[in-house]
Amino acid sequence: MTDPVTAAAVDRAREAIDRKIRLVPDFPEPGIAFKDLTPVLADPEGLAAIVAALADFCRGADLIAGLDARGFLLGGAVAAELGVGVVAVRKGGKLPPPVIGIDYELEYGRARLEVPAEGLDLRGKRIAVTDDVLATGGTAVAAGALLRDAGAQVHSIAVIMELAGMPGRSVVRDGLGADVPVRTVCEG
Amino acid sequence: MTDPVTAAAVDRAREAIDRKIRLVPDFPEPGIAFKDLTPVLADPEGLAAIVAALADFCRGADLIAGLDARGFLLGGAVAAELGVGVVAVRKGGKLPPPVIGIDYELEYGRARLEVPAEGLDLRGKRIAVTDDVLATGGTAVAAGALLRDAGAQVHSIAVIMELAGMPGRSVVRDGLGADVPVRTVCEG
Repeated sequence: MTDPVTAAAVDRAREAIDRKIRLVPDFPEPGIAFKDLTPVLADPEGLAAIVAALADFCRGADLIAGLDARGFLLGGAVAAELGVGVVAVRKGGKLPPPVIGIDYELEYGRARLEVPAEGLDLRGKRIAVTDDVLATGGTAVAAGALLRDAGAQVHSIAVIMELAGMPGRSVVRDGLGADVPVRTVCEG
Repeated sequence: MTDPVTAAAVDRAREAIDRKIRLVPDFPEPGIAFKDLTPVLADPEGLAAIVAALADFCRGADLIAGLDARGFLLGGAVAAELGVGVVAVRKGGKLPPPVIGIDYELEYGRARLEVPAEGLDLRGKRIAVTDDVLATGGTAVAAGALLRDAGAQVHSIAVIMELAGMPGRSVVRDGLGADVPVRTVCEG
């Protein structure tokens, strides 16, 4: 991260996160503290700084993908900031037909992501994938693979917070290739 | 709608919708044509025009609420455009505790919306509620009532498309009061 514009945006975003993040003890299970970014996004400076940082991460993409559902809060804002469009990568069963879908394994059970197969042409598009948190990396890899199935290129994975001690970054590298940059505002 | 800036933004957004909207026949049930705004939001001009129009609708709000889940695509972008924060009004069971919730009736069965009860103070905030489509109005009324339960004021309901022949607008007027403006880009 040598671009001074990006570095300044990331610094501002980190300050807003440090100031506003809420820790929820024993959620979703005992011994785990959930990192809740809700107060950061509800803060004018926090939202502005995070959107600026993620937009810098995604610059050069033709289209922004938001991951269902919290990634939508970021995807639309980043797309508008960059002057491109946004597409929602949805959980299975939410979109009208026809769809292109991918089934994948989660820690507990299976999940499915879908994008529309009609009405917009993803072929050849460079798409940046946005989400709030990178944890296991499974959903990010599935989203990238799905966008490739639809004929798109994965520009990058752009996320606010990478969870410490979780394998997300290496799972994405193994799953999508080292040429797909994983860019995160902070580790938490 | 007499403000010339808003009128111009709405005109641009309507043109983008006319150009890009996709009709899905017989979805979600036979005889109904689903109005899919996905291609409009994936279009750079479409997203920019819609965000500009909704932001004009929401001007004066302290905070933007996006309704789970497609409203998130709009809420974050509108909030960033206006320089305020965004809060997700979530379906039941998605947020970490503690939450403030409301149960309400839908056409088929019951539903629940929740906002955080900790980490951000909604009391006294003027909150504009954004979503993509206004149909029965039930979810918009429930969201407004929930935000009031949390101590906030409802600034307005700002939506891209009001479905023709559906009672959304009058349901919102009856449910939240005539002093809560319902602003929509188009009827469809």
